[in-house]
Amino acid sequence: MKGSDFIQILLRSYGINKIYGVLGREAASISFNADYSQDFILVRNELTAGLAAIGASRLTGQPQACFSTLGPGVTHMATAIGTACQDRDPVLFFTAQLETQATDYNNAHQCIDAVSVSRPITKYSSEPTTLEQLAVAVDRAFSKMLTYPLGPALISLPIDLLDMPVSDANIAKWLSPESKPVKPTASAAYTTAIDYNIQKACDLLATSKNPIIIVGDTVTKSPDAMSIKHSLEKINMPVITTYSAKGLLPRDHSLYLGVINSYLDVILEEFIQKDIFETVDTVFLLGYDMTEHYPNAWNHGERKKIISLNYFDNETSKSFIPDIKITGDIQAVLQKISEKIESRAVIHEDMVRVHDKILNALDKFMDEEPHKDSLSIPQIIKTLNTLFGPYDYIVANDIGTHRHVTATFFAPQAPHHYLTSAGFSSYGTGIGIAIGAAFARPDKR
Amino acid sequence: MKGSDFIQILLRSYGINKIYGVLGREAASISFNADYSQDFILVRNELTAGLAAIGASRLTGQPQACFSTLGPGVTHMATAIGTACQDRDPVLFFTAQLETQATDYNNAHQCIDAVSVSRPITKYSSEPTTLEQLAVAVDRAFSKMLTYPLGPALISLPIDLLDMPVSDANIAKWLSPESKPVKPTASAAYTTAIDYNIQKACDLLATSKNPIIIVGDTVTKSPDAMSIKHSLEKINMPVITTYSAKGLLPRDHSLYLGVINSYLDVILEEFIQKDIFETVDTVFLLGYDMTEHYPNAWNHGERKKIISLNYFDNETSKSFIPDIKITGDIQAVLQKISEKIESRAVIHEDMVRVHDKILNALDKFMDEEPHKDSLSIPQIIKTLNTLFGPYDYIVANDIGTHRHVTATFFAPQAPHHYLTSAGFSSYGTGIGIAIGAAFARPDKR
Amino acid sequence: MKGSDFIQILLRSYGINKIYGVLGREAASISFNADYSQDFILVRNELTAGLAAIGASRLTGQPQACFSTLGPGVTHMATAIGTACQDRDPVLFFTAQLETQATDYNNAHQCIDAVSVSRPITKYSSEPTTLEQLAVAVDRAFSKMLTYPLGPALISLPIDLLDMPVSDANIAKWLSPESKPVKPTASAAYTTAIDYNIQKACDLLATSKNPIIIVGDTVTKSPDAMSIKHSLEKINMPVITTYSAKGLLPRDHSLYLGVINSYLDVILEEFIQKDIFETVDTVFLLGYDMTEHYPNAWNHGERKKIISLNYFDNETSKSFIPDIKITGDIQAVLQKISEKIESRAVIHEDMVRVHDKILNALDKFMDEEPHKDSLSIPQIIKTLNTLFGPYDYIVANDIGTHRHVTATFFAPQAPHHYLTSAGFSSYGTGIGIAIGAAFARPDKR
Amino acid sequence: MKGSDFIQILLRSYGINKIYGVLGREAASISFNADYSQDFILVRNELTAGLAAIGASRLTGQPQACFSTLGPGVTHMATAIGTACQDRDPVLFFTAQLETQATDYNNAHQCIDAVSVSRPITKYSSEPTTLEQLAVAVDRAFSKMLTYPLGPALISLPIDLLDMPVSDANIAKWLSPESKPVKPTASAAYTTAIDYNIQKACDLLATSKNPIIIVGDTVTKSPDAMSIKHSLEKINMPVITTYSAKGLLPRDHSLYLGVINSYLDVILEEFIQKDIFETVDTVFLLGYDMTEHYPNAWNHGERKKIISLNYFDNETSKSFIPDIKITGDIQAVLQKISEKIESRAVIHEDMVRVHDKILNALDKFMDEEPHKDSLSIPQIIKTLNTLFGPYDYIVANDIGTHRHVTATFFAPQAPHHYLTSAGFSSYGTGIGIAIGAAFARPDKR
Repeated sequence: MKGSDFIQILLRSYGINKIYGVLGREAASISFNADYSQDFILVRNELTAGLAAIGASRLTGQPQACFSTLGPGVTHMATAIGTACQDRDPVLFFTAQLETQATDYNNAHQCIDAVSVSRPITKYSSEPTTLEQLAVAVDRAFSKMLTYPLGPALISLPIDLLDMPVSDANIAKWLSPESKPVKPTASAAYTTAIDYNIQKACDLLATSKNPIIIVGDTVTKSPDAMSIKHSLEKINMPVITTYSAKGLLPRDHSLYLGVINSYLDVILEEFIQKDIFETVDTVFLLGYDMTEHYPNAWNHGERKKIISLNYFDNETSKSFIPDIKITGDIQAVLQKISEKIESRAVIHEDMVRVHDKILNALDKFMDEEPHKDSLSIPQIIKTLNTLFGPYDYIVANDIGTHRHVTATFFAPQAPHHYLTSAGFSSYGTGIGIAIGAAFARPDKR
Repeated sequence: MKGSDFIQILLRSYGINKIYGVLGREAASISFNADYSQDFILVRNELTAGLAAIGASRLTGQPQACFSTLGPGVTHMATAIGTACQDRDPVLFFTAQLETQATDYNNAHQCIDAVSVSRPITKYSSEPTTLEQLAVAVDRAFSKMLTYPLGPALISLPIDLLDMPVSDANIAKWLSPESKPVKPTASAAYTTAIDYNIQKACDLLATSKNPIIIVGDTVTKSPDAMSIKHSLEKINMPVITTYSAKGLLPRDHSLYLGVINSYLDVILEEFIQKDIFETVDTVFLLGYDMTEHYPNAWNHGERKKIISLNYFDNETSKSFIPDIKITGDIQAVLQKISEKIESRAVIHEDMVRVHDKILNALDKFMDEEPHKDSLSIPQIIKTLNTLFGPYDYIVANDIGTHRHVTATFFAPQAPHHYLTSAGFSSYGTGIGIAIGAAFARPDKR
Repeated sequence: MKGSDFIQILLRSYGINKIYGVLGREAASISFNADYSQDFILVRNELTAGLAAIGASRLTGQPQACFSTLGPGVTHMATAIGTACQDRDPVLFFTAQLETQATDYNNAHQCIDAVSVSRPITKYSSEPTTLEQLAVAVDRAFSKMLTYPLGPALISLPIDLLDMPVSDANIAKWLSPESKPVKPTASAAYTTAIDYNIQKACDLLATSKNPIIIVGDTVTKSPDAMSIKHSLEKINMPVITTYSAKGLLPRDHSLYLGVINSYLDVILEEFIQKDIFETVDTVFLLGYDMTEHYPNAWNHGERKKIISLNYFDNETSKSFIPDIKITGDIQAVLQKISEKIESRAVIHEDMVRVHDKILNALDKFMDEEPHKDSLSIPQIIKTLNTLFGPYDYIVANDIGTHRHVTATFFAPQAPHHYLTSAGFSSYGTGIGIAIGAAFARPDKR
Repeated sequence: MKGSDFIQILLRSYGINKIYGVLGREAASISFNADYSQDFILVRNELTAGLAAIGASRLTGQPQACFSTLGPGVTHMATAIGTACQDRDPVLFFTAQLETQATDYNNAHQCIDAVSVSRPITKYSSEPTTLEQLAVAVDRAFSKMLTYPLGPALISLPIDLLDMPVSDANIAKWLSPESKPVKPTASAAYTTAIDYNIQKACDLLATSKNPIIIVGDTVTKSPDAMSIKHSLEKINMPVITTYSAKGLLPRDHSLYLGVINSYLDVILEEFIQKDIFETVDTVFLLGYDMTEHYPNAWNHGERKKIISLNYFDNETSKSFIPDIKITGDIQAVLQKISEKIESRAVIHEDMVRVHDKILNALDKFMDEEPHKDSLSIPQIIKTLNTLFGPYDYIVANDIGTHRHVTATFFAPQAPHHYLTSAGFSSYGTGIGIAIGAAFARPDKR
């Protein structure tokens, strides 16, 4: 058995059953043998390989892997790496590298320092020079990718490793034991401070008049998303989500307030976001990530009290100094809070009114007469609803004005049915993500 | 009020009440006003400043801060930064930097890129250029320092910031809210995997014949150290510690097996470590950190099953592939384990025998006749025991053969009464650490 | 006047009269006013912007500039940066960045650390935060770009700089004086060693039986290319070039031996490269750069003596240890050599024979009957020769097998009429380079 | 033969005949065999090793090497590396590293990423993993160290390399050919621009009324220092030097104006520096390096025209925008200038007056009556002059007020008889530098 087989077996043990990629010269050394219960999905270019892995990761909730050739392969992947970085997708990018002894950055043909280039936009980046180091690098990559905030890793793979022989004994030794993480890791918590902070959060929520919960994609990417939703219902406060967290509540849910969307009031020709954010007095951020929306998008109008609960230390920045910061297991903390505070009997009347206003405004545009030659985005969504069942299909959205319009009207019934790059927001990412989505959920449209 | 006051107030709000340091030209701009309940401890050089902060941190269990001048100030501190890095001490290193507009690395007098130099040996490193950025940097520094594995941070401080005016409104805005972390943060846990792994660990412990627990300094640095000790007693398995974790169990404790010490058998002229590690079948690592001892120090003899429980993902390396890895709150997990497994009625007879053998060997050397002109290390310890109460004083130990001998004979009754650099192990660190210890615990010897 | 005007004036003073680019949000702040004798060439995407600047640089022999939006703008440019890095093109890449106070890498929307990402593949990379720093950064960028080996620089431009006011006095102060470099810099020379090494090179050349000169693109990118050609003729040794250096000698030149081309013997169905490199005893490398061809491409067969003359220290690598290394002004050193050695009366007969063999083989393929439906590459070249004059047009070549075939048959009469990425060799670069070439030399085809 | 022998032979071939150092565990693997015409100078600690190499480098004009153990060895050396960086000393720092397969930065005992730590303050930094890579690394280190601005390099040496076997054939292959650089390299020049700039400089010098030449240490470190001095005399303009360049002109030379010294007027109780810099109209910087003195030290008073001539591009900064910048071989350019301009018949009368004023003031302090119990610095110098011949001994000066006083009064008769760290200016560097000086010039005091 040789290195290229070992890589497949190793990745399979972390749950990787598809590798999206493009091969160059290294194709001579790696066969991506289908016997290892692993498919190689050949795509058009390296960017698409990365984006497809991102799309698949969102739909499966699992880390994914992709593969590119050396040199320009790395730079072509750069936009996908940046997307996975800022959209917090656990994708492992493999890139080939010259043979170990020939590697000489910027001084040998097509040889660049892929590790240093990618380090600022990955959670882990390494160029192993033995198969043993490769096994260690893969384990560390998964560990870092699955620690919140989630994100990508890169392994630059000297192609001579692919042809190195490897004994069964070494395979047995280097394969990690079965307790491998294939789920995101939760929550660094301030052990001694956490109960104190939970109590403070409960006190604040109990006394606030018009609170709102903002849910970010960190929640919908968590394996506990559905339990968290359940706790939210118990707490009974209105919920607004980011673009990527869409679908946690369906649009007919009584707590549903749509998405944070700077363009919404313009698109719907009504003051809705303004009504929400200028009147709420307390904002409870749940798994909120600043790459999705800079706080300016909601932190205006009346001075608000802010509680932030997240798996990771959502870094204080100049426009974001929460009054109470809780770093811990979101679901565990939320359950404690839901037990400690009395469930709100009623939603604040302003928010009830806004809830109705949104639904009416959305319907109005979807019910307009079609233009002669073309469908507007609301009308497209209405048509798709008829074809596939209401909001029960997956939309992968590129970047531009149409993104904001689609994000306004499409209201999926579960998370990750609306796929967009909320963080990095690069043009041209929609198709690649859709390709991965199609492979990951062939049953969905 | 100006920047230099703001820095003091800001640090005070994170619990910093002493700053160890050396000032250069920037002394003209910062007064370290004692009105802010903060003492400036002037020491001889920058290395001592850093080491004193390390010593104080170990004894208080709190992060500490130190200050140096620019340029050579940074490089003189390097050994202290490296020590805090590998010994996992949460110490914030401030170094002065040229005025913002004059900064030009390697091209202006005494101006080096302190951030890049220190980045590989800190958990966070930053050079803010406004006071607002400084407030953010300090918050991030504390957050990173207090995330396991603990470690140092560095802030390079352009001296013009010290003279910038700052309004009360900004101070109020930039000071973090009261929920600031001043305790180490616990535990990234694999939410969904953790219960499964706990069960597997219990099964393994239940069936192992001769298990041992190795306790690392991560445990003794945790605010939960005493609860962890309690759980250990409930589980009732023999315990051996690293040098830095000494004192969790006193030497007369029935579970006490001394410290991992490659030189012990030579010093005591008996096979003790060999007897331990060649016979145990299961090793349960608790807060074990590879910088303290490379696994080769204990992972020899019979093939062992290994369980590793730590707050952070104790990275897999080539000589360390645990069978079961649990990343989570050590105390919480340990308590679950102690509830799930039946307490061991008896310690394995081999370990009982070894326990007695150690104590006899130690006493033998301490009871030897003194030489005419000098005391051996065991005799010094015996003398100190008489003067201050048995093992009830603090020893700060430099590096060299005498370190291994002292570590063999000194058996403190509580953690952090034996101070040494187990990780970085630099010559010349004993005195500096002792200075900090003296300031932190003036009541102790 | 504001920052965006200042940038234009500043770049104009370094000879930049075209900026290839794509604008995002920053378009609101920068107008690229045509009054400053500077055109903004809007292209389809950031990659094309970079490639067009590369193409223009090769044809003008001058540094060029391009501009992209922030975040994904940087990653989309990555392949062009890599190309400029390995093909040694002095191109200045501007990328927008968030406002100075909002910049927070990986934590703010579309905000990445463009400087760190690009540093490993540029000669200079910086993110200025004042206009004064910008002026310094631009000066350093040009200085580094124009030092051999030539290459790209990147400036990440916070968009608030564009709107900052700037006084005429400051413009006068910050604009560099007129002695600005706009030509590549020559030659670090070992002052005391150089004469000794020149003598040794002369001795070796005088005694070698069958020497060859390999000319790299560093020569054709030098402002002294034509003088160097003249010295070569005086020395009268056969010359072979790399792909990028094509055209220094036209194909009817008596010293012409074509290009180093691993595929040539297969394409022409004759042993030509093999005949050359297996028989020469001395290789004189002139401006040879390992990114163009790894030495294995020519360093086989008989053990050769190697002389390397370059402007910069052509780094020793594992497959490249020259017997004599001269780092200095290529033209000055070559002239000294041509004065010291007696001109070779005759070319070695083997090389004369090879010269004829190549020309015959090339003609044979160009004279073949056309296929019914399509033209082969040699036939296309033949047709173009008829249309535009023999070899007197510019070919921009993408990557793939057709590149090696085109490189075999197209024999331009001057340097930089054959444009390809010899170093980074990324697919998809041909069109972008051609766009820049068209703007730079509208007179050429 | 094994790796440790190979290292010695390799370094010997670059002229290294002494290695200053401290050994740790790696002492078992490297013997520093004196048979290789190389002495190992054991010093007290790593900082001293580095400083001694610096001292020796200044006196010999040759690169030097030193050696430290791993982990803390690197951080202890940091101040010496910083000094070599900012004082531009070509010193190669070796530090040991764990065995290749055990290396795991911050995760293994005493194992830090020495390459990344040192990169910001070296010209080259590398951790080879084979002996072949080591040979390449050493060659690149020397090449970078000897390119202006000169400076240090670091090689992190995995200790298993020391025991690797190496064949004679490989030694022959890996040893560079004899044309190895052991002298600093000269001058990147703007080929096409340089003559134009030289003419402009001549025009400016011809029309200026009261010009001065400032000579930096780059000149005195050049192998051409004495020829440059000769050209200066031909040009006949008053000369002032930096601290490190002291001695190029002796104090009785008619062009001598002492050193740039911000404290001089205070020490001598006379306006001297003020008289000089407030009246000169043209400053001609020769090998001037901003780490020695920030331009503010001389660029005040009357608006001056500035010409800067240096081997390397003396980077434009915010306080330093020369009117004419010439980057080239200092000696060659200066000779051209001296041929083009007519020698100045007379020195400006102001400067003649200042020259006399300095000498008088200096003598006054040296002739004062000694205090009862102690000698002042001027009196010490006077005494040493008596003992060893006037100013004909070497002074190594630490940092502090006494440095400025000594620099005022000591006037050596040749360069590098006054040794101080003008750039990094770290306390505690005097002794170490003196040790190296003593080894390098045992004949001098």
